[in-house]
Amino acid sequence: MHNLLILSRHADSYRRLIEAARLAELGIVDGNPSAAVDVVLGEPSLIRGALPQLPALKWVQSTWAGVEPLLDPTLRRDYVLTNARGVFGGLMSEYVFGYLIAHERLIFERHAAQQAGRWDPTPPGTLRGKLLGLLGVGSIGAALARTAKHFGMRVKGYTRASEGCPDVDAYFHGDAIEAFAADLDYLVGVMPNTAATRHLVDTTLLAALPARAVFVNPGRGTVVDETALAAALREGRLAGAVLDVFQQEPLPPDHVFWRTPNVIITSHTAALSVPTDIAPVFIDNYRRWAAGEPLKYQVDFARGY
Amino acid sequence: MHNLLILSRHADSYRRLIEAARLAELGIVDGNPSAAVDVVLGEPSLIRGALPQLPALKWVQSTWAGVEPLLDPTLRRDYVLTNARGVFGGLMSEYVFGYLIAHERLIFERHAAQQAGRWDPTPPGTLRGKLLGLLGVGSIGAALARTAKHFGMRVKGYTRASEGCPDVDAYFHGDAIEAFAADLDYLVGVMPNTAATRHLVDTTLLAALPARAVFVNPGRGTVVDETALAAALREGRLAGAVLDVFQQEPLPPDHVFWRTPNVIITSHTAALSVPTDIAPVFIDNYRRWAAGEPLKYQVDFARGY
Repeated sequence: MHNLLILSRHADSYRRLIEAARLAELGIVDGNPSAAVDVVLGEPSLIRGALPQLPALKWVQSTWAGVEPLLDPTLRRDYVLTNARGVFGGLMSEYVFGYLIAHERLIFERHAAQQAGRWDPTPPGTLRGKLLGLLGVGSIGAALARTAKHFGMRVKGYTRASEGCPDVDAYFHGDAIEAFAADLDYLVGVMPNTAATRHLVDTTLLAALPARAVFVNPGRGTVVDETALAAALREGRLAGAVLDVFQQEPLPPDHVFWRTPNVIITSHTAALSVPTDIAPVFIDNYRRWAAGEPLKYQVDFARGY
Repeated sequence: MHNLLILSRHADSYRRLIEAARLAELGIVDGNPSAAVDVVLGEPSLIRGALPQLPALKWVQSTWAGVEPLLDPTLRRDYVLTNARGVFGGLMSEYVFGYLIAHERLIFERHAAQQAGRWDPTPPGTLRGKLLGLLGVGSIGAALARTAKHFGMRVKGYTRASEGCPDVDAYFHGDAIEAFAADLDYLVGVMPNTAATRHLVDTTLLAALPARAVFVNPGRGTVVDETALAAALREGRLAGAVLDVFQQEPLPPDHVFWRTPNVIITSHTAALSVPTDIAPVFIDNYRRWAAGEPLKYQVDFARGY
């Protein structure tokens, strides 16, 4: 018999969805951590504080892609940690390509013209033939690359080492980040928050981008040197930034981004974790666990993803 | 030897692109209609007035998809008319799905929140699982259906008779237009301007749509009963309308749409005809013509497309 603790704002939904799957040998414990709990499903920020009260813990399934709260080196690592993957690609594609098209088609400028009662036949741009650069090509990056190809774009990928996505036309690694950036129309950040990705979008990378480029960040705020980004936008060295994530969230009222030109702020809504997406990931992984098979989407604590 | 007259605002670009193709037995005549001209490439609105001065005319290649100016029954029809097809699908997809995503993700509402300095974590919607209805499934409709499938949508098509597009899940014809409309999240008009499509979007069709639905019209303004559409929007019987085309363009300053709630006006920019797209259509068709083969994209004068 296994005992599952659910630590999530959506605990009731998860309970209903998991009960409906009638998983063998699984009980769902009520509310609080206890010595009987060996499996936890939930949000890393809520799970972190419960770790000391879970002596029998064997496996944690995160409902998020990012698991930073559990990666603090002072925390225990004597359990299997799996995260949510393969479920955010569609939402991320809608987010990224919605704002890319908004930029090409002057959606906000046209909206302002309409408010002024003005017929505005300014020709729009197109995604077709434009060059997209992906900072990170995991499951989300691969989904973005596929949508980019659907719209006739060319795709470059910057990764640590992997080159496995068929929709990426050219790969770059390590020191080649300026060559990666040199001719991009769009740079999209979809890297996890690790020591290696911290402030990857810095003065050097921003200086390597063409002034026509737009940076989109639905990944992690820590990837960006926010002061350097604000300066590049203020000085017109970058055409725009669409930012979903920040070093501090909610973005503080006195943050420079509220007053920086050509910034779009979307308040960490790019790809929300919803139980109908994540419960199937848990259910599939539980069946594997019960059968003694390896779990999907295991996180390497040292690597950070 | 054939003599081509180009009647287009982009005549210089077309001349360069066609000269670069080095077509056999083709001369490009300068500027004006003459007795030597047997082929015309250009915009139907400019060609219409030249028809009486082209006694040797054999073939007209339109640079537009819509050829209404040449369909007036008082005009001659003693030549082959071909239109531009297969080139607008990509641009139309960017337009339609840009505004669909803008609606789902509350892009304008979030923009307003940002202007007010407000962090706005309102959860967005998603295209996934939503139902798109296509009024017309020609080459543009088929491109939209393919993009809808890419984003995980379901697709219904309303056509005169054709059922050839693999990305349409269910077809409707004739009197079944209310059944077609009954459960749509989005209705997109991509029908040509013909007697059969005039005011197809009328009080009856609008009443059949759910109140959550959004109507997008990048096709032809004549398809819409504009008074009925404005009333449906004013009374909240429809969630929104994204309109690129109108009965009269530019939209007159006193038109009700400038003051109708939840209307987006995009000033006939959804899919502009550009020489780099259309010249290859002409060049391919010219080679067919010179070889005595049937031309692609022939318009049936009686049917109107």
